[in-house]
Amino acid sequence: MGGYENGDSTAAAALADGGVILGVDGGTTNTVCVCLPAAMSPPESPAAVPVLARAVAGCSNRNSVGESTALETLEQVMTQALALANTDRSAVQAVCLAVSGVNHPSDQLRMLEWIRDLFPDNAKFYVENDAVAALASGTMGKLHGCVLIAGTGCIAYGVTEDGKVARAAGAGPVLGDWGSGYGIAAQALTAVIKAYDGRGPQTSLTRDILEKLELSSPDEIIGWTYADPSWARIAALVPVVVSSAEDGDEVANRILHDSVQELADTVIAVVRRLRLCGEDGKDIFPLVLVGGVLEGNKKWDISGEVIKCISKVFPGTDPIWPEVEPAIGAALLARSHHHKGLKLENGS
Amino acid sequence: MGGYENGDSTAAAALADGGVILGVDGGTTNTVCVCLPAAMSPPESPAAVPVLARAVAGCSNRNSVGESTALETLEQVMTQALALANTDRSAVQAVCLAVSGVNHPSDQLRMLEWIRDLFPDNAKFYVENDAVAALASGTMGKLHGCVLIAGTGCIAYGVTEDGKVARAAGAGPVLGDWGSGYGIAAQALTAVIKAYDGRGPQTSLTRDILEKLELSSPDEIIGWTYADPSWARIAALVPVVVSSAEDGDEVANRILHDSVQELADTVIAVVRRLRLCGEDGKDIFPLVLVGGVLEGNKKWDISGEVIKCISKVFPGTDPIWPEVEPAIGAALLARSHHHKGLKLENGS
Repeated sequence: MGGYENGDSTAAAALADGGVILGVDGGTTNTVCVCLPAAMSPPESPAAVPVLARAVAGCSNRNSVGESTALETLEQVMTQALALANTDRSAVQAVCLAVSGVNHPSDQLRMLEWIRDLFPDNAKFYVENDAVAALASGTMGKLHGCVLIAGTGCIAYGVTEDGKVARAAGAGPVLGDWGSGYGIAAQALTAVIKAYDGRGPQTSLTRDILEKLELSSPDEIIGWTYADPSWARIAALVPVVVSSAEDGDEVANRILHDSVQELADTVIAVVRRLRLCGEDGKDIFPLVLVGGVLEGNKKWDISGEVIKCISKVFPGTDPIWPEVEPAIGAALLARSHHHKGLKLENGS
Repeated sequence: MGGYENGDSTAAAALADGGVILGVDGGTTNTVCVCLPAAMSPPESPAAVPVLARAVAGCSNRNSVGESTALETLEQVMTQALALANTDRSAVQAVCLAVSGVNHPSDQLRMLEWIRDLFPDNAKFYVENDAVAALASGTMGKLHGCVLIAGTGCIAYGVTEDGKVARAAGAGPVLGDWGSGYGIAAQALTAVIKAYDGRGPQTSLTRDILEKLELSSPDEIIGWTYADPSWARIAALVPVVVSSAEDGDEVANRILHDSVQELADTVIAVVRRLRLCGEDGKDIFPLVLVGGVLEGNKKWDISGEVIKCISKVFPGTDPIWPEVEPAIGAALLARSHHHKGLKLENGS
């Protein structure tokens, strides 16, 4: 949580005199907002980030919960972070909204129009896909390299040192994000249905998933699945799939191996398009790994397998597990945009 | 539409004196209700079915539109059919509701409780999955054989002469119905995204789908997809996939071949579980084929390919394309249940 614990509130308030900046990481499972002093220096280490406040709310992916709910959630989480930092909207100098589901310039524009009305006229706003904040959380604010997020959804997003960007996946469950938590869990549920129908091999996923969902028969899975359209609810079954695979279930192992290949393919596509590994394909580039599917010290090491696949093609892959959360990455981006703006205004 | 055209309204009214029966085919794309005279004899031919009225409404699959919308749609379509037949609820002797999304005895029970309150106390009600009506539409009311429905959704459903039933698929888009119209179209949209990302081969589906949706770039497909959760809207792209495949596109051809295999596998699973082909696997059984994916005289003959796959395993497959619609199948089932009930009451 950075350098400000309870006793530091005076120092925090002093730092906040120059106003504050907000970094928002809007995901499909939850949304995190952090509030930092606008006058802060670039942090020397992850532990030195002066977090004034942190607030958490639900899903803000408009493709999952609809636009109005998504915007309400974003407003709520920012308001709460400001209140926790003992300040208000008038102190806001810059905001970086990094939100999943922002895929097209028109999405960005609509969100920029919306956020301008919430804060002072002179504040600066940056709207990006949440992948950008995740990348910055691994590089401490430097936009260079590739990030792979695999939580409820998945996306690979890359930026070159001269500012070219590319992405792959991040298209949601209908459009083939099979390496995502949702994708892995949906494949596992499908395997249970197919085994029950007599269309697929028997699998211990049947016993393990029914136990987890407290259902008594696979045909009850259909009703369970469609009773609530939340993608995160499906994705929450990933630990069951991992544990079935660890116990040797072949179907679960096949699902995880296929998903590893999908995730590796998305990164490879981005690195290739941006030539992040140079002309000979051997340059070193940072690969930031974020999200529940890629975390944890499990026996079945999904992120390790993904890195192995990518490194076969691009040996310069340099994996980074961020030490700060993506919302801090968003705040560091807001900070650097804000300071660039100040320099321009001062003519320097 | 059967034997009653405009001029026959007097004859129809006379037949309806003994009350009416309703057959409802509730699908994911639309819902059809037909009203028949309860006193009718078993029809000698499809053209001889005495349809008093027919009404059409939208989707009544509760897994797609939610339970309350589904029930409203069902009530509306039945009310409209009765009004068109110049009669009302008091004349109803029997109703067969054959509705997609009815997958579990608890779904049936809830729907039975709901429908009992709409009609006279002595009326008889039968709630089934819509597959049962589709089977009956091919066998003119006899419940024996297997039906394969592939429209927006897909399901295989079989019944033996001694009343054993089995089904496969029908689990909706999250749970692997890849041979459905939705499944085919979602795979095509995914192929466009993958080609755009550089994760998959180039395909003429990109040009054909963007043209059909009046979009200018593949990244706009993400917004289009999630703007409206209707499954039927996605499935409406199937003709584009078929025409791309007919024009020689390899990706579109791969999607259709995979879907053919999925559909064949669902039928094979049901036929095997019910031993519909006898102990030696060579008996003849009716396979009723229903739904937009299996219709049409296209060059790319999806239903022909499915039958070819199934016949390799079960040479006794006897394909039937029904001459009446599934709602008539539902009405014929309501009729036969009603007449059985009368015989029981009369002690015969």
